[in-house]
Amino acid sequence: MPNKVRIALDTMGGDHGPSVTVPGADLALVRHPDSEFLLFGDGAVIGPLLDSLPRLKAASRVIHTDVAIKMSDKPSQALRYGRWKSSMWLAIDAVKKAEADVAVSAGNTGALMAMARFNLKMMPGIERPAIAALWPTMRGESVVLDVGASIGADATHLVHLATMGSAMARVLFDLERPSVGLLNIGVEEVKGLEAVREAGVLLRDANLPHLDYAGFVEGDDIGKGTVDVVVTEGFAGNIALKTAEGTARQIGEYLRNAMSRTWRAKLGYLLARGAFRILREKMDPRASNGGVFLGLNGIVIKSHGGTDPEGFAAAVDLGYDMARYELLTKINQTLTLNRQDTASAVASASVATAGVHS
Amino acid sequence: MPNKVRIALDTMGGDHGPSVTVPGADLALVRHPDSEFLLFGDGAVIGPLLDSLPRLKAASRVIHTDVAIKMSDKPSQALRYGRWKSSMWLAIDAVKKAEADVAVSAGNTGALMAMARFNLKMMPGIERPAIAALWPTMRGESVVLDVGASIGADATHLVHLATMGSAMARVLFDLERPSVGLLNIGVEEVKGLEAVREAGVLLRDANLPHLDYAGFVEGDDIGKGTVDVVVTEGFAGNIALKTAEGTARQIGEYLRNAMSRTWRAKLGYLLARGAFRILREKMDPRASNGGVFLGLNGIVIKSHGGTDPEGFAAAVDLGYDMARYELLTKINQTLTLNRQDTASAVASASVATAGVHS
Repeated sequence: MPNKVRIALDTMGGDHGPSVTVPGADLALVRHPDSEFLLFGDGAVIGPLLDSLPRLKAASRVIHTDVAIKMSDKPSQALRYGRWKSSMWLAIDAVKKAEADVAVSAGNTGALMAMARFNLKMMPGIERPAIAALWPTMRGESVVLDVGASIGADATHLVHLATMGSAMARVLFDLERPSVGLLNIGVEEVKGLEAVREAGVLLRDANLPHLDYAGFVEGDDIGKGTVDVVVTEGFAGNIALKTAEGTARQIGEYLRNAMSRTWRAKLGYLLARGAFRILREKMDPRASNGGVFLGLNGIVIKSHGGTDPEGFAAAVDLGYDMARYELLTKINQTLTLNRQDTASAVASASVATAGVHS
Repeated sequence: MPNKVRIALDTMGGDHGPSVTVPGADLALVRHPDSEFLLFGDGAVIGPLLDSLPRLKAASRVIHTDVAIKMSDKPSQALRYGRWKSSMWLAIDAVKKAEADVAVSAGNTGALMAMARFNLKMMPGIERPAIAALWPTMRGESVVLDVGASIGADATHLVHLATMGSAMARVLFDLERPSVGLLNIGVEEVKGLEAVREAGVLLRDANLPHLDYAGFVEGDDIGKGTVDVVVTEGFAGNIALKTAEGTARQIGEYLRNAMSRTWRAKLGYLLARGAFRILREKMDPRASNGGVFLGLNGIVIKSHGGTDPEGFAAAVDLGYDMARYELLTKINQTLTLNRQDTASAVASASVATAGVHS
């Protein structure tokens, strides 16, 4: 890691492009003055924005490109016209070429994943990518993955998710051995959970130094913060994430309606304004903005497309942390140990079997 | 349907047994005076409770049994010692023998499903059971299924879920043609959704008279109330349900903490008490208590095990509605029409294919 954290931004991504991403970078820079930015996008738009943000301007280099990936494009379309030249591709490519330590984009998720995978390739030993989200809980925050990069998972993929998620939790929460739970459903003797059960056995037997396997957890354990890392395949994970977002919005709406119904309620609201502000901050989806792409030879962060500068800054912060505290190294450490342990487990199993058959 | 709705209760089920289920039945009876109860369980416990509830006593018959299914038993264990004689079995058996129109239990879900399936058998044309939940939304309520009866689903099973869920929505919401969405994730070109896509095509082509197929929905659409019926396989459905419950509890906790931090907040809370009461009612999990077992030749309702009399009464109410408004007949109507439509679709497809090959 060089002295500064070098962040490559796809400034054109997201619903609002540079008008959100550039001021967002400026906010993140205040919190992490040891950052440097490569700003990929339309120089004619970025230039004037930078002129009003001298601090960011001093820490940035603009790399002009005319090509921007549209939010509605399919990944295959985006790859066809955007490879080699779009702001999204170039930001990822800066990571590939080791000119940046992390790439951040608020652009189209499918296109970003396709380009990241195409350009950075999978880490040795990992077959499929994942997206990890930070989930606010009653105890703080947890890492939840996969929230939608790929559907379905065998036991090996679930173990890889556990490995990568625990590395991310080590980076973010400063824990030596984060607790990891496998998301499951509580109904007894239901068929179809073989992969989850098998992954549980593998994780328990491996007894890894950087991963404290805590068993199965259910949907309501996520919000409780029962474990530091919640592991599931991408379909269920995406549905859990979106369902929680929907529920939070729904309750916020109930609360707003209830508080504006009578003059007593309105007065009560005014008096308790400070408390409601704290509540809003707690429930603010911007604070936990940013999905981390895992399993690739490089760090890529996806911000929500519709976010504002504050939300985009949270995604940049997340990218900063992942790069500064060496996510990839930590994933590799756990993976290597895991391979050694699995190999020795397989070896001793063969010895045992040989014993039985001799 | 006889004049009265005959409800068979497993009074021993749940964390608290008759002390919750019997007063719960009494609350439900007030709302539906045209109910009759068969109370299965320990007569020595139920008798004294009924003596203090003369209204319920007059509308009930107690059928004594010594055997009660424990909450912690595995379905196979429960079947072994509880078949033919437990309060749970006898309540289901009353539906089988047409002595009751619906059975309600707060007992162990796995055991209840195993016994219901063993005794009532699957409806003709349905291969796997489902559990449907009522989900409070911004627009009112929606039916969500399957929330955990079985894991994974091919296109045919998803179509069956849509059919059964729409019949349930017709019963509950008094709609001629409820809208139905298939739960999916928004990431483009992700592999593994073939079953969901295929089910979408089948539902669109069938264009059923009692089911308005509205396309794919995402996790956050559930709470919005985008559709009347949300269809998904049981693993994702269970995780969505539990995650939403967890999120609601989490936000409730945030709110309580925020409102007790300062004297201004406390005073505001006091003033807005009425508004908070409305909010609590909106968020009250007891109000939407009760899972409906679908796909069986009989109606069985599962109440939460830890609920109180008010919550158990909500499950009884749900059972009353399902029986009174003829859920099974409505499912059969849609299934029959669906089979006809599917048959004719297959027939015309064969004709078309024959044309191509001739």
